[in-house]
Amino acid sequence: MTHPIDAYVERNKERFLEELKEFLRIPSVSTDPERRGDIQRAAEFVAASLRQAGLEHVELIGAEKFPLVYADWLHAPGKPTVLCYGHYDVQPPDPLEAWASPPFEPEVRDGNLYARGSADDKGQMYMHVKAVEALRAVLGTLPVNLKFLVEGEEEIGGAPIARYVAENPEKLRADAALVSDTALYAEGMPTLCVGLRGLIYLEVEASGPARDLHSGLYGGAAPNPVFGLIELLAKVKDAQGVIRIPGIYDDVQPPAPAEKASWESLPFDEGEFLRTEVGSAKLTGERGYSVLERIWARPAFEVHGIGGGFTGAGAKTVIPATATAKVSFRLVPKQDPEKVIASFRKFVAENTPEGMRVEVRVLSAAPGVLVDPEHPAIRVAARVFGEVFGRPTVFIRDGASVPIVGDFAMHLGVPSVMMGFGLPDDGLHAPNEKYCLKNYYQGIVTIARFLEQYGQQT
Amino acid sequence: MTHPIDAYVERNKERFLEELKEFLRIPSVSTDPERRGDIQRAAEFVAASLRQAGLEHVELIGAEKFPLVYADWLHAPGKPTVLCYGHYDVQPPDPLEAWASPPFEPEVRDGNLYARGSADDKGQMYMHVKAVEALRAVLGTLPVNLKFLVEGEEEIGGAPIARYVAENPEKLRADAALVSDTALYAEGMPTLCVGLRGLIYLEVEASGPARDLHSGLYGGAAPNPVFGLIELLAKVKDAQGVIRIPGIYDDVQPPAPAEKASWESLPFDEGEFLRTEVGSAKLTGERGYSVLERIWARPAFEVHGIGGGFTGAGAKTVIPATATAKVSFRLVPKQDPEKVIASFRKFVAENTPEGMRVEVRVLSAAPGVLVDPEHPAIRVAARVFGEVFGRPTVFIRDGASVPIVGDFAMHLGVPSVMMGFGLPDDGLHAPNEKYCLKNYYQGIVTIARFLEQYGQQT
Repeated sequence: MTHPIDAYVERNKERFLEELKEFLRIPSVSTDPERRGDIQRAAEFVAASLRQAGLEHVELIGAEKFPLVYADWLHAPGKPTVLCYGHYDVQPPDPLEAWASPPFEPEVRDGNLYARGSADDKGQMYMHVKAVEALRAVLGTLPVNLKFLVEGEEEIGGAPIARYVAENPEKLRADAALVSDTALYAEGMPTLCVGLRGLIYLEVEASGPARDLHSGLYGGAAPNPVFGLIELLAKVKDAQGVIRIPGIYDDVQPPAPAEKASWESLPFDEGEFLRTEVGSAKLTGERGYSVLERIWARPAFEVHGIGGGFTGAGAKTVIPATATAKVSFRLVPKQDPEKVIASFRKFVAENTPEGMRVEVRVLSAAPGVLVDPEHPAIRVAARVFGEVFGRPTVFIRDGASVPIVGDFAMHLGVPSVMMGFGLPDDGLHAPNEKYCLKNYYQGIVTIARFLEQYGQQT
Repeated sequence: MTHPIDAYVERNKERFLEELKEFLRIPSVSTDPERRGDIQRAAEFVAASLRQAGLEHVELIGAEKFPLVYADWLHAPGKPTVLCYGHYDVQPPDPLEAWASPPFEPEVRDGNLYARGSADDKGQMYMHVKAVEALRAVLGTLPVNLKFLVEGEEEIGGAPIARYVAENPEKLRADAALVSDTALYAEGMPTLCVGLRGLIYLEVEASGPARDLHSGLYGGAAPNPVFGLIELLAKVKDAQGVIRIPGIYDDVQPPAPAEKASWESLPFDEGEFLRTEVGSAKLTGERGYSVLERIWARPAFEVHGIGGGFTGAGAKTVIPATATAKVSFRLVPKQDPEKVIASFRKFVAENTPEGMRVEVRVLSAAPGVLVDPEHPAIRVAARVFGEVFGRPTVFIRDGASVPIVGDFAMHLGVPSVMMGFGLPDDGLHAPNEKYCLKNYYQGIVTIARFLEQYGQQT
C-alpha cells in the first residue's frame, strides 16, 4: 500500500517541478553586486513559499542586503523541534558558454533538472518546504515544531548567519537541525553524513629586507622571504603528509570500529578515485590509513599559495621584502582549533629562518563536527531513509566543512541531520549543474516521513 | 699644467649640459608601446650626434622598431679598435608623483642633473660621444679606431643586440669594448668592474591532480603541487645558503689574492650595508665568506615566486593542478651554465615528490664574466682613471649580469672595460634619477684620455 505522503507527492509532481523552476529562474548570485535585486526576489520567493506551506512569523532579517529568511510553526507541544536550514543564493554561472542550456532557464533532460542552484541548494532547500506542505495536506497538522532559517550568503562565506545564530540561541532553540546541502554517497544509496573536518585558515607572512632587492646585487647575503617561507613550510609536514608539529595528533581519535567497518563497505574504488577524480600519477598521504580515513578522519596541512614574489610571464630577479603563504589545517573532531593554532605559532617561532620575521594571521578557525549516530533524530532519519530507498543507510563523513553545522553545534548545542539528496556528479559550482528529479521527489517524501516519525518519538 | 682635453671639456661644459638635456627630454621608454615615436627620435638624436662628432657609416639597424645605432671611424691603422656600447632607452618614470621635477624636463639641483635616463644610460652613453668630439678638437684626429653600437632595448631584455652581436663578429671586431653603464664604488673613487655573475633563470612546474581540487575533499590523499615545489626547492640549498646540488661548486674558483685584498680595502661597512641597503634583521649566507665574496664570487640560488596557487585576499581552499616556481642561479666565472642546468635537472628528477611530474624550463642562461686585469685596455683604463680622480683605481665585481658584456666576450672574444661614472645613490629605475654633473664632465675627460693613452700602447 502506498504511503499517503508518497501518494500526495506523486499527485503533485508537476506542480512541485514548476514551482522549483520558478525559484531557479531567479539569478540570485550572491557574489555579484549587480544581482542585489535578484537576491531580494529570491528571499521573497522563499518567504512566500513558507507562508503558503503554513509557516508563521515569516520575516526577512537584515533585509537591506542579503536577507535571512526566518519562519516557524510551534503548535506541537511536547513534540521535538526541528530547525530546517538551506540557502537560496547560488554560485556564479561562469563560464556561460559551457552550459548546454542557459543556467537560469531550467530544463529537464534525461530525468535531470539542469540549472544553476538546482542541487546547490535551491532544489534541496525547496524539498523542506514541499515536505511541510505534504505533511499538512495528509495529516491536517504538523508532527513536530518547525523553525526555518534560510540564508542568502552561503556562497560568500555566511558571516551574517553565523552571527545571527550566535546571538539568538533562544529563538533558534531546537532538538535537531535538518541540513540538506550534501549528496548521496552513490546513486540510490541512502546516506547520512555524521562527521565534518574543521578548518583553520592562516596567512603566514615572512619579512626580510626593508624593500624589494635585486637578486644579482644581494643574492647570497640578503634573506629571501620567499625561500624563508619555503624552508619553514617544508618542515611542517613530511613527504608522507605526517604533520611534524609536536602534539598535533594528541586529540585525534580513530573512527569507532562500527564507523570504520561501514566505510570499508562503501563502493569506494581507489583506482577509480585516482583516475576519475584526482588524476595524478598516484595518491599520497599517511601510510597505514585508507584513503577515506585520510580524508575524513585525519588532520591535513596544505599550502594553497605563496604571494609576494614574482609570478608573471618572463623573468624578474627579485628578492621581495615580504612574502605571504596561504595555508590551512583540516581538523578532525576533538581537535581544539585554539590549541592547534598555538602549537603552530610555537613551531613557527622555533623554525623561523635567520634574518626574518614571521607573522601568523588567523583568517578563520572552526572545529570538526561529529554527530552521535545514536541521537534519536539520526536513528529515525537513518531508518526512514532506508525505508524510502529500500536499502540500509550508510554513515559517512565529509573532509570539508559545512560551517552552519559547526555553528548549530557550538551555539545551539544542536546536532544536524545532514540528509542531502544530491549526487556526486551534480556539478556544483560548475557549468551544467543538475539535480536528479527522482531524488527531488524522493527527498520530499523522505523528509516528510522523517518529520512524521521523529514526531512519534517519545 | 691643465691637460688640453680637460681644458676643452671645461670650456664646453655649458654646451655639453644643454645637449644632454635635449637628449633627456625625449621620453624613450622602451617598455611603453605608445613611445615608439620617441624611441625613433632618440635613435636619430644618437645618430646625428655621432655624425657631428666625426663618426662615419652611421646607420640605424632594424629601424622599423627600436633601432640599433652603429657608427665607426677606422682611420688609425696599427692602432687598437675600441667598441663603445651604450643604450638610449630608459625605464618608465612611474610613479610620476614621486618626482620632485618632471622626469623628462631635466633640472639641475645641487650639482646633480635630475631626469629619467640621466645616469642610466643616456648621460653615460653621451660621454662617449663628447669624448670623441674632444679628442678630435684637441688632437685633430682620433688615437684609436672606434666602433659605436648603441641599443634601444636594454631595459626590455636586449634580445636584438645579442642576436646582432652573435651574427656580426667580423663587423664588430675590436680589441676592447668600453661600457659605461655602471657606477663608482663610492663618490670620488675610480672604479673598474672586472667581474660579473652569470644568470640562469628557470621555471620549475609541478603537476599533480588533473584539475584544481577542493582541499577539504582531497586534502590528505591528493598530491599538492604547491607543497611539492616547496618540498623540492627546500632541498636545493640549506639554511646557510649552501647549494646542495652535487658538483655545483666544482668549477667555482676563489678570487685571486690581489683581488681579494683589494676588496678588503674597500670602504664596505657590513653594518651600514645591512641597515641602509638590505634592512633585514641580519644578513644571511655562506659562513666563512665575506659579504662581498658572497655577492661577487659565490654562486647563489634564489626562488623569486611560486604561482598557480591562491594568493588573493581572503581564503580559498584549493589544491591547484599545477604550480610554477621562478628560480635562478647566479653563476661565477668558469661555471658552465649548461653543466649547472644539467645538474639541476638531475637533482629535480631525483627529488621529485611522489605523485608529481616536474618540468624544468630554461628562460635564459648566461655565464659569468671575468676580465683579465692585466689586459692592456684594463691596465691603461686603471692608470688614467686614477690620474684623473687623483687616487688609485679599485677593482670590483658586480653580483648582477650585464648581458652585453657576456655577449661581447662570448661572440667577439673581446674584454669589456666597465668604466661607469654613476654613484650608488643615483636612483636608477626609481623616481628622481640623477647624474652627478661633476662625474659627467670627469667621465668625458677620463674616457678621452683613456682612448688617447690606449692608442699609444705598442
